[in-house]
Amino acid sequence: MTTARTKFALPPFFCPVDPAIHPEVDAIENRAIAWIDELEMYEDSSRRRHVLKTNSAEFFSRFSPAGRAENVLLAAKWVYWGFAFDDVRCDEGPLSEHPAAFAEMAGRVQRVLEAPQSLDAPDDPYLRALHDIGLSLRRQATPTQVRRFIDAHRAWLHGVAWQVGNQARGVMPQLNDYLAMRLGSCGGFPTMALLEIANAAEVPAHEMDHPAVRAAGESAILTAGLDNDLHSYRREQHDRHADQNIISVLAHHEDRSIDDALAEAVRLRDRIMHVHLRLSEQLLPEASPELRTYLAGLKAGVRGNIDWALRVPRYSTEHEPAVDGHPGFSAAPSDPDPAAPPVPVIRWWWGELRDR
Amino acid sequence: MTTARTKFALPPFFCPVDPAIHPEVDAIENRAIAWIDELEMYEDSSRRRHVLKTNSAEFFSRFSPAGRAENVLLAAKWVYWGFAFDDVRCDEGPLSEHPAAFAEMAGRVQRVLEAPQSLDAPDDPYLRALHDIGLSLRRQATPTQVRRFIDAHRAWLHGVAWQVGNQARGVMPQLNDYLAMRLGSCGGFPTMALLEIANAAEVPAHEMDHPAVRAAGESAILTAGLDNDLHSYRREQHDRHADQNIISVLAHHEDRSIDDALAEAVRLRDRIMHVHLRLSEQLLPEASPELRTYLAGLKAGVRGNIDWALRVPRYSTEHEPAVDGHPGFSAAPSDPDPAAPPVPVIRWWWGELRDR
Repeated sequence: MTTARTKFALPPFFCPVDPAIHPEVDAIENRAIAWIDELEMYEDSSRRRHVLKTNSAEFFSRFSPAGRAENVLLAAKWVYWGFAFDDVRCDEGPLSEHPAAFAEMAGRVQRVLEAPQSLDAPDDPYLRALHDIGLSLRRQATPTQVRRFIDAHRAWLHGVAWQVGNQARGVMPQLNDYLAMRLGSCGGFPTMALLEIANAAEVPAHEMDHPAVRAAGESAILTAGLDNDLHSYRREQHDRHADQNIISVLAHHEDRSIDDALAEAVRLRDRIMHVHLRLSEQLLPEASPELRTYLAGLKAGVRGNIDWALRVPRYSTEHEPAVDGHPGFSAAPSDPDPAAPPVPVIRWWWGELRDR
Repeated sequence: MTTARTKFALPPFFCPVDPAIHPEVDAIENRAIAWIDELEMYEDSSRRRHVLKTNSAEFFSRFSPAGRAENVLLAAKWVYWGFAFDDVRCDEGPLSEHPAAFAEMAGRVQRVLEAPQSLDAPDDPYLRALHDIGLSLRRQATPTQVRRFIDAHRAWLHGVAWQVGNQARGVMPQLNDYLAMRLGSCGGFPTMALLEIANAAEVPAHEMDHPAVRAAGESAILTAGLDNDLHSYRREQHDRHADQNIISVLAHHEDRSIDDALAEAVRLRDRIMHVHLRLSEQLLPEASPELRTYLAGLKAGVRGNIDWALRVPRYSTEHEPAVDGHPGFSAAPSDPDPAAPPVPVIRWWWGELRDR
């Protein structure tokens, strides 16, 4: 990784998890598309195409390969919604550089989810669709699962608000800030909160709220978030703005070459995946069946996110195909150091390990 | 209330709840002040005076009159912190009109609470104090109580971000938006989440996450939030900026006089308090002892907030004393209409009533 290269190529992903996908993925996709059309969750046919090309049904069918189809469909609807909202309102839309307007919109969005029957004149296609998802959630999930999803959703918007604020001021955050921000902004909290809904297996509160389980959840989420940074880096190079991204952060603040920043990003990402796997191993022997299902879902999510990303048009550009060949998978972390990296906002995860 | 008046006078508060205060309030206050001094949670002696004059120990001693003293102290520390932070960073400080900088700061603040041992060089007195509170929380509260407080804390910052965004753009929100924003920005979520910690009585998840319990919690929080609007309106009239406030919102958008807006605000507030009391009544017969304690705490909180506000220097100005005589309490709502008011973001609370 130290030689100069003209092309940005991904190294293998450390992810000792088997691939899997829900057997009803095609039916789930068709039903999700029918719902998107019914609610007109787009402004025009070009946006519709863009939404469908996120392959969100495939995405969540990989997260929950043995889930209840009806609930995997519900999760997939939210993923379609999340990508559409992200593109139109967060990453590239008119609000992406206007933190004040974003805060108002995020407040309205969150409340539409929290408060059933709270939309009188649903002329906004995104509010309308999210409100509908909220009503379905209340029918198909338990009150605790609904509450967890609502809180996770707010954690996502909280992270995106930080990202939008940085973008508005042209701030490239330091690594410590970036990881705290990215943990929320990547959308992993609501996505992973959908696992126990899709699998129809509510994790008891004393387990879900246990610090080691929370550390396992956060570390899986950040692994996937950094993976998405790696996938999207190439695409973003072609966009007009220099997005906040683990590679940009390391290149900017540590004066590294892109190749060097990429290698460092992968080392950090692998250490995070590694602590996730160790926490998960540690928790399994005493876990309830529901917690086992949840922990398996976190791993399926990290793996499924990679498999999805390597195919999805979202991470390719007109100039370059999705990947220069499959980077493959690795069974060992590129950095085997078992200790916490020097990043204060995440090091408590390592403190939850019993064998450290 | 329809005649012109030169002075802004509060009508009686509809709050059929007895006053109460923790017997160890003085010791709690002394210990809280010692902690504030130990951590130097202020920039100078003037700020120190300002922080102490929030009477936060008295405040929370009213919320939890039978709580475990050690835990009431912890709750009081957070209330002192919250008021100090609010004044310096939200309402009046340099970030109060800079939504991008606020989002970054809110992200850091929230992460300091979420991630134990995440501060290396705690030179910021507010981050330092909140981090310390987070460590104490993990020693004195259950994992589920800690998680609930963390989520509630984020809900507060989410609301304040919206408020800051409006302030930056000079937006006076419509009533529906304002109530969604105020529910979060008033700080009631974290304050009420401290109840079950102060009382050392964890409410089981199947109760706490039940929609009727959530509606009871939200309606108590918004009642207290609107009460604080009434208390602070006079003070804010003397400040340079016209703060977002239920009275300003009604006066601005419905072209009402201040007297008329005040009366309308009180009617709305009373209907909200009324639905809270009805929900609480409905829940009590089947409630666990812990839920009973929590519901009693919500009522004590609404009442305690009023008793505290009528004495605290925070709501007086140099120009006017705290109150023109005590407005007193009323046993009946100024508007007895039992139906939901025409405000979409809150009407689902009435949908949780069985006897509607």
